[in-house]
Amino acid sequence: MSTTNLSETGENLSFVLEGVHKVKFEPRPIPELKDPHDVLVNVRYTGICGSDVHYWEHGSIGQFVVKDPMVLGHESSGVIVKVGSAVQSVKPGDAVALEPGVPCRRCEPCKAGKYNLCYNMAFAATPPYDGTLAEFYVLPEDFCYKLPPQMSLQEGAAIEPLGVAVHIVKQADVRPGNTVVVFGAGPVGLLCCAVARAFGASKVIAVDIQPTRLQFAQRYAATAVFAPEKVSAAQNAARMKEENDLGPGADVAIDASGAEPSVHTGIHVLRTGGTYVQGGMGKDEITFPIMAACSKELNIKGSFRYSSGDYKLAVDLVASGKVNVKELITGTVKFQEAEQAFKDVKAGKGIKTLIAGVRA
Amino acid sequence: MSTTNLSETGENLSFVLEGVHKVKFEPRPIPELKDPHDVLVNVRYTGICGSDVHYWEHGSIGQFVVKDPMVLGHESSGVIVKVGSAVQSVKPGDAVALEPGVPCRRCEPCKAGKYNLCYNMAFAATPPYDGTLAEFYVLPEDFCYKLPPQMSLQEGAAIEPLGVAVHIVKQADVRPGNTVVVFGAGPVGLLCCAVARAFGASKVIAVDIQPTRLQFAQRYAATAVFAPEKVSAAQNAARMKEENDLGPGADVAIDASGAEPSVHTGIHVLRTGGTYVQGGMGKDEITFPIMAACSKELNIKGSFRYSSGDYKLAVDLVASGKVNVKELITGTVKFQEAEQAFKDVKAGKGIKTLIAGVRA
Amino acid sequence: MSTTNLSETGENLSFVLEGVHKVKFEPRPIPELKDPHDVLVNVRYTGICGSDVHYWEHGSIGQFVVKDPMVLGHESSGVIVKVGSAVQSVKPGDAVALEPGVPCRRCEPCKAGKYNLCYNMAFAATPPYDGTLAEFYVLPEDFCYKLPPQMSLQEGAAIEPLGVAVHIVKQADVRPGNTVVVFGAGPVGLLCCAVARAFGASKVIAVDIQPTRLQFAQRYAATAVFAPEKVSAAQNAARMKEENDLGPGADVAIDASGAEPSVHTGIHVLRTGGTYVQGGMGKDEITFPIMAACSKELNIKGSFRYSSGDYKLAVDLVASGKVNVKELITGTVKFQEAEQAFKDVKAGKGIKTLIAGVRA
Amino acid sequence: MSTTNLSETGENLSFVLEGVHKVKFEPRPIPELKDPHDVLVNVRYTGICGSDVHYWEHGSIGQFVVKDPMVLGHESSGVIVKVGSAVQSVKPGDAVALEPGVPCRRCEPCKAGKYNLCYNMAFAATPPYDGTLAEFYVLPEDFCYKLPPQMSLQEGAAIEPLGVAVHIVKQADVRPGNTVVVFGAGPVGLLCCAVARAFGASKVIAVDIQPTRLQFAQRYAATAVFAPEKVSAAQNAARMKEENDLGPGADVAIDASGAEPSVHTGIHVLRTGGTYVQGGMGKDEITFPIMAACSKELNIKGSFRYSSGDYKLAVDLVASGKVNVKELITGTVKFQEAEQAFKDVKAGKGIKTLIAGVRA
Repeated sequence: MSTTNLSETGENLSFVLEGVHKVKFEPRPIPELKDPHDVLVNVRYTGICGSDVHYWEHGSIGQFVVKDPMVLGHESSGVIVKVGSAVQSVKPGDAVALEPGVPCRRCEPCKAGKYNLCYNMAFAATPPYDGTLAEFYVLPEDFCYKLPPQMSLQEGAAIEPLGVAVHIVKQADVRPGNTVVVFGAGPVGLLCCAVARAFGASKVIAVDIQPTRLQFAQRYAATAVFAPEKVSAAQNAARMKEENDLGPGADVAIDASGAEPSVHTGIHVLRTGGTYVQGGMGKDEITFPIMAACSKELNIKGSFRYSSGDYKLAVDLVASGKVNVKELITGTVKFQEAEQAFKDVKAGKGIKTLIAGVRA
Repeated sequence: MSTTNLSETGENLSFVLEGVHKVKFEPRPIPELKDPHDVLVNVRYTGICGSDVHYWEHGSIGQFVVKDPMVLGHESSGVIVKVGSAVQSVKPGDAVALEPGVPCRRCEPCKAGKYNLCYNMAFAATPPYDGTLAEFYVLPEDFCYKLPPQMSLQEGAAIEPLGVAVHIVKQADVRPGNTVVVFGAGPVGLLCCAVARAFGASKVIAVDIQPTRLQFAQRYAATAVFAPEKVSAAQNAARMKEENDLGPGADVAIDASGAEPSVHTGIHVLRTGGTYVQGGMGKDEITFPIMAACSKELNIKGSFRYSSGDYKLAVDLVASGKVNVKELITGTVKFQEAEQAFKDVKAGKGIKTLIAGVRA
Repeated sequence: MSTTNLSETGENLSFVLEGVHKVKFEPRPIPELKDPHDVLVNVRYTGICGSDVHYWEHGSIGQFVVKDPMVLGHESSGVIVKVGSAVQSVKPGDAVALEPGVPCRRCEPCKAGKYNLCYNMAFAATPPYDGTLAEFYVLPEDFCYKLPPQMSLQEGAAIEPLGVAVHIVKQADVRPGNTVVVFGAGPVGLLCCAVARAFGASKVIAVDIQPTRLQFAQRYAATAVFAPEKVSAAQNAARMKEENDLGPGADVAIDASGAEPSVHTGIHVLRTGGTYVQGGMGKDEITFPIMAACSKELNIKGSFRYSSGDYKLAVDLVASGKVNVKELITGTVKFQEAEQAFKDVKAGKGIKTLIAGVRA
Repeated sequence: MSTTNLSETGENLSFVLEGVHKVKFEPRPIPELKDPHDVLVNVRYTGICGSDVHYWEHGSIGQFVVKDPMVLGHESSGVIVKVGSAVQSVKPGDAVALEPGVPCRRCEPCKAGKYNLCYNMAFAATPPYDGTLAEFYVLPEDFCYKLPPQMSLQEGAAIEPLGVAVHIVKQADVRPGNTVVVFGAGPVGLLCCAVARAFGASKVIAVDIQPTRLQFAQRYAATAVFAPEKVSAAQNAARMKEENDLGPGADVAIDASGAEPSVHTGIHVLRTGGTYVQGGMGKDEITFPIMAACSKELNIKGSFRYSSGDYKLAVDLVASGKVNVKELITGTVKFQEAEQAFKDVKAGKGIKTLIAGVRA
């Protein structure tokens, strides 16, 4: 790692990925407002997620390849420092959560209300777009969500993974009284449990192979937990139904693990007409029990990032106390120690580690 | 095959499967009306479908195993001969299409409007329930659909596969102006093309590996056809998009083939947010491009038989001339030659073969 | 009122409406099970609602006219005393809530999942069908909902109005984070507030003209209350938006009052694209701000009784503690004093009065 | 009317409303492209609609008051003459239909896929925004829809009212096999009939009080027509059901008349659970049969302009021959005679009158 003078420079100190496992701190120009609706944000806290770590380790995710040096990070909160001439919804000094993907607003998915599927998305820390691990970041005002007084900037940084979970649970169309199984008790899986409860699910069963994660899930938001055994997916599903009195099966299964056995167990644990949502990333292709899905007439959906209303609801859920994100924040490192955070996340230390901003 | 006196007996001559490739004609008692809403139907025409042939060849389909002798057949039309005391919607002499699966009307799926997912379904020619290849069959009045004067009893027998196609296209939520790709140009695939057109699809692309089927599809209902090459599914999908000016991809993909390469091509040819419906039966488990499905946030659905409103709409589509089922009926055999029909279907002769009723 | 020996008779003592304000207690035969799925219930508690009182006072509701003597009551709980040969879900001794309307299960609305719109509904205490204010009542097993151990039979009797509220809130499609205004703080309006909260509404504003009702609503389930002034509906709506920080308007308005000014205020307080549900009964025709509804592209829906899943969810909401119905039960009278209960309800005493069963 | 030199000036000759019945032709500056996605269009044909005439006659529509001189017109086609630097979808010389309302793309309705409900809409010829009755008009590229070769620029001008009809029929959620009643056989009502047919409606009943309009509707797109008598709405509805064999009622009722008796008849002719859409503009408040709407649990919706996908589908419907707009264009006047067109429309002459562009 190339080192850099971290003293307050008036410039925009940024944490830049140059290649696999090769990062540096670089002072870059403070970005300009390009549109009257743009605002400049001083970034205060940034969470690290699996995709950040994946770029750091592999230099690419699927078709997205880091060719030029790229600033990392996309789970951020900050404070508004400057606003464009047309901005009305925020003002300098406001604490905000940053929604880090700005759609074109003009393509068919954008105009149809699914801007997460925009054909021209500019998403932070997805090549070729720089991320938020910098002192300053520019966004349109409508992608900045004011934090109410009772919310901290640390909680604000957790709105991004919570937005992911909100989108997954919306895709799953969880309704009051539903029984929901969530595979994977990492940050997104845990948040899916909490959001499903907030949506009125009567049973939320967390599934994981690590006992400590299940213990946390049980304390945190799950109404029950399940540790799969080394038997067939159908057998695990049968035991899960029996132990949890699910009758003909669960209403909803959410995968936040990306693991093939989870997918199979999820399909088998559902009732006829149930809904399965693939939230976790994993292998491009897996073996899939398609005839079970077909004959039970399941609804199977992907979930990709977040879209209309998700961030707003995520802030509401935290502000109202329905979802607790503080419990998931298990550590904070200084900006200068950003790379250590990547190493810790890679090593599975804690649940969610934040990187403080240069001035946080 | 055991032979039987086929003369008109006053009894209920039935075509019975006793074991793999072992069938007989057996005079059985004429079934009784058990409920005031029941009617007795003299069966006139019965189509043969892949599942019938599968029972005849293998004695089972998945978990459904033929243990006791079972009457085959479930795609039938007939004429009402007797009605229960409460029947109001039909009367003796009425020509009707028979919907061959009677749900319990009491379980949650039934009461939620999805009776095809009934936990206690009694479906013709699905063990242990006898099918319709008999002189007489009993059904509740609301599962008999009057044929309007312009429709023949032969067309009435084709309402069953058309109902399957209607249900698939409804699951696919095809809307006016949509682009739809249908994999498999057998009877159900062809009917899906026709129904998708009737639902207002602007482009309907039929995909099959047999040139003669594609030719038929093009004449019949497809607006374009596509013969896959021996390249990757992604490459076939790319060529299909280009040849058909599908831009970011098709709105809807329907599989009526059950073949793994079709499933893959279907996933890859869809736009973000598109809908995939699995209508065809195939292997229990296949390799599946789950990350493509996830990151494009596809809606993937099974389609199982037919449900509320499907048969009624199927009759409407034929009566109004929007779907032509006559063209698909490529042969009719006598009741006594029923087994020959199974052999012909197995050999891929024609598109849809009907078996005439004993008195047709 | 004709008097009757109320001693335990072995017969089915019933509370019968003979004409306007003319009721009697009459021993009737204990009803027979007609279907193998039927059960006989010993009725334990019955709530009185506005429609019961309306029949008692007027002898009719709209097109429904009491011609022959009719047993009143339809909000009941009880204990199973006998089950038909096919019954599996309940057994003698089980405490249950009674869903008092049995649909035909055969008409289009029934098969489409909207059995509350059944063309042949048999609904308790709606002419010509007798109600539940009797010692015994017969229902199909699937219209009896087992009360979990933590629920009392008194709470069981409140499942009916809660089912009404659940159906209204479902019609309103209340989603987490929504802002909801409920007009009318009687039993159904209060329950709508509680159910909207359970569905995740972030703001629930109760509106009524009686200060004591608003005070109760505020303690019970509303997040805010609003007392309309004698100004235009548009002015009341504007003040409600301002006081409650509703920005462009509420997401959902529910009328549980039946009053014309409520309807107008409800339409005016909604944002563009908002949803209005008419739950309350009132005048057949009213003045209606149709152009406001049109240009804001509102969704306006009626809500009629309850349908698939509503009772089950109502039991879940009480069992899980999400909705408290105990607080609404403000009195219980003996079966022999049933008429007094009607008088009290008519006089507006308390919120919900129960009539105990003969053996309760 | 003040007269003006109509010779080709190189300037932007515009038809301007100055006050009630006070219009003038005024050379204005050719508008500038303000955004890299903007295009300049030479307007070729413009239809006149009721709202244009209403401004001309009254100087206002509801809250929208013409304070400063305003160019009229919003139903236009044209030819692209200049494109911004980022434009990719069209090029100079392309014939296009113009969607005349540009949303902000940033507010909640915009991002939720309902840009017609935008809180900051700039709509042509709605104060304070100038309309399209000028030589030149600027729009973003994504609000220009290329006309395929088989479509004329006259047809292109009819895409606007067709877009209104498409949006109404989508709001009505017309599905294949539905029975649809359309009140009002003016341009929008007629187009609703045609679009409902294209959406697969099996019966489309046009209702009007003018026999010549009904005759046109019958030839054009209705499957049946109905002339109301001077009896109650309930009686007219009963006769309509009987004459058209609608059984328990129509699936969908669309009002394109704005007349109170139509609204009432529409509510009464629907089956339980049916859908009513208010498309026509009329009095702000009317008498409304709210209890019928409530107890039948109707879905009642407004329809306002057009939104995501509507224009695209409108072009598809004309290009594919499913909807014929040529038959509705009953006259074309020269630009210089624009006011005469308003007078003709006011007088009810013909169905749709176009004003040719200065260079058309």
